[in-house]
Amino acid sequence: MTGDHRTPVTVIGLGSMGAALAAAFVEGGHPTTVWNRTAGKVAALVGKGAKQAERIEDAVAASPLVVACLTSYDDTRQALEPAGAALRGRALVTLNSGSPAGAREMASWAVGHGARFLDGAVKNVPSAVGASDTLLYYSGDKSVFDEYETTLRVLGGDTVHLGDEPDLAALYEMAVGGTLLPALVGFFQGAAAVQARGLPASSLVRFTTKWFEMINSVLPVFAEEIDNGDYSKPASSVNLFLAGAAYDEELGKEASLDVAWHAPLHDLLNRAVAAGYGDHSISALVEVLKKPDQAT
Amino acid sequence: MTGDHRTPVTVIGLGSMGAALAAAFVEGGHPTTVWNRTAGKVAALVGKGAKQAERIEDAVAASPLVVACLTSYDDTRQALEPAGAALRGRALVTLNSGSPAGAREMASWAVGHGARFLDGAVKNVPSAVGASDTLLYYSGDKSVFDEYETTLRVLGGDTVHLGDEPDLAALYEMAVGGTLLPALVGFFQGAAAVQARGLPASSLVRFTTKWFEMINSVLPVFAEEIDNGDYSKPASSVNLFLAGAAYDEELGKEASLDVAWHAPLHDLLNRAVAAGYGDHSISALVEVLKKPDQAT
Ligand SMILES: NC(=O)c1ccc[n+]([C@@H]2O[C@H](COP(=O)([O-])OP(=O)(O)OC[C@H]3O[C@@H](n4cnc5c(N)ncnc54)[C@H](OP(=O)(O)O)[C@@H]3O)[C@@H](O)[C@H]2O)c1
Ligand SMILES: NC(=O)c1ccc[n+]([C@@H]2O[C@H](COP(=O)([O-])OP(=O)(O)OC[C@H]3O[C@@H](n4cnc5c(N)ncnc54)[C@H](OP(=O)(O)O)[C@@H]3O)[C@@H](O)[C@H]2O)c1
Repeated sequence: MTGDHRTPVTVIGLGSMGAALAAAFVEGGHPTTVWNRTAGKVAALVGKGAKQAERIEDAVAASPLVVACLTSYDDTRQALEPAGAALRGRALVTLNSGSPAGAREMASWAVGHGARFLDGAVKNVPSAVGASDTLLYYSGDKSVFDEYETTLRVLGGDTVHLGDEPDLAALYEMAVGGTLLPALVGFFQGAAAVQARGLPASSLVRFTTKWFEMINSVLPVFAEEIDNGDYSKPASSVNLFLAGAAYDEELGKEASLDVAWHAPLHDLLNRAVAAGYGDHSISALVEVLKKPDQAT
Repeated sequence: MTGDHRTPVTVIGLGSMGAALAAAFVEGGHPTTVWNRTAGKVAALVGKGAKQAERIEDAVAASPLVVACLTSYDDTRQALEPAGAALRGRALVTLNSGSPAGAREMASWAVGHGARFLDGAVKNVPSAVGASDTLLYYSGDKSVFDEYETTLRVLGGDTVHLGDEPDLAALYEMAVGGTLLPALVGFFQGAAAVQARGLPASSLVRFTTKWFEMINSVLPVFAEEIDNGDYSKPASSVNLFLAGAAYDEELGKEASLDVAWHAPLHDLLNRAVAAGYGDHSISALVEVLKKPDQAT
């Protein structure tokens, strides 16, 4: 593609994320057609230079590359149903959250309608769309990725194809994203604890930021232990974490907090000890997570 | 202090962390006296140039600044009991993990023995001790911090005094450190999920690293919402997280994982919705954590 002949793109769904994607394509000089179920969200994009399609079948027919960012795969199929025939021969890229099973279903549906299919995930917030280090990963039809890589890169400079299986992006999305809620709840608990002393939550930010950087620095070691299945040379042992578990209760008392959400984490530690991993690396919890507790 | 007259320091406790602290003082040119309950751990430090004290009372008497890094405050008091008289007039710095209540008890004990007391925490792994960006925070007697700041900075360039109350370092230690186990369990779960597909855990590292950087980028916004008590302009709503909760179950099925540890996190989300925070920022979970569930 040269600068004068940028790939025409259609964006389906103009929620927080879809609107950011469409805006990035417009700003990147791509002829951009947009469609949203609720028409009210379209005006802002049209103001920036996007073309509104009244019907979803017209939206799909307008571009060789169709990017959908709806809430779920089910929503995406439901919305695209009237445009099934128009999809033939086009590249469909979905960028919603969902499970690997959902991505596989979506892929079958798309391929069944004669579309070439790529699933992806934006690993960041809408305001980060378009930045050079924003990560998006994709999986599915590699020929779609190769043909439109330059166009997709408009959404974020760190754009990766994980493999041909269409559910890999959803798998990584969940495997990576699964840290978010627990990490945030940990931060919110800390915020409540310092607030109980009349100190601002903002006083924690610089320390927590550094703490996550520390965690990042040890991830390669944990991954290596896990890949080798060798937990015997611990930098931090299961027992060390178990010793720290008592402080969670103390924190609850100290700051009048509900720390009940720790209980199953402590249970994982105890099960690791029972399985003989007490003096092994905390990464041995992987082995416990792999063995569902049949009693519950 | 000039380079030729560095403060003599005593380090009590030569576990993984204590040994790293003592080594940093030795390398920093400080006359360093060491003591450990189990004598076997002393030799390595003596080899580097530290002086061994046979009895703990001799160790304490050897330096104006005594740094203790044992497992807990209880262990520290128990070990220091025979050296109570020797502590008079000296500065005692404890660097173990523990609760704010434990730090307060430790402070009373130390002050009762005529010592000046500072509690602290090393927010990093032993191998990071001595690095220019390694974070240690302290609280308690500010005159001790001011007098020995240069010496304490040998342990890490990012050395902070949080306030005069001796339990603030322990409070921040728990408030910051409380993200570690939940974040790691999230990562281990992801590792198990990709392994179930025959992919290495190491393939996750680059993505998870970026994800934690993303989380760091949004912490200031959450802290501001929490400090203002205004959750009404969400970048990510409670309902958005609740929609994602269903995928945790899917992940469990997909990769045969025990995802039961998510249940209380989902319960927090549901309680936030019940409290009227569904369309509010996820940071509103702070308000739910502040209200212990009396039923459990
Ligand atoms: N926002 C983020 O921070 C973020 C970050 C990473 C990934 N994501 C993912 O991106 C996806 C979209 O998120 P968002 O934040 O943009 O959500 P959002 O603001 O709630 O927007 C949802 C969009 O989906 C449309 N939609 C939902 N159900 C539909 C249906 N049955 N038929 C037609 N249109 C339907 C909505 O149309 P209406 O306007 O008509 O309701 C709207 O355009 C989600 O999967 C989310 O997990 C979001
Ligand atoms: N290692 C880390 O990554 C790390 C990071 C941050 C903070 N910390 C904190 O630093 C502190 C020490 O951790 P560590 O990793 O060094 O632990 P460690 O390797 O298990 O060493 C524990 C030390 O405490 C001594 N000790 C325990 N109970 C004692 C008692 N009753 N009397 C005398 N000595 C006693 C041990 O002496 P013996 O040799 O005789 O057993 C040993 O020197 C802990 O509070 C930990 O949470 C550790």
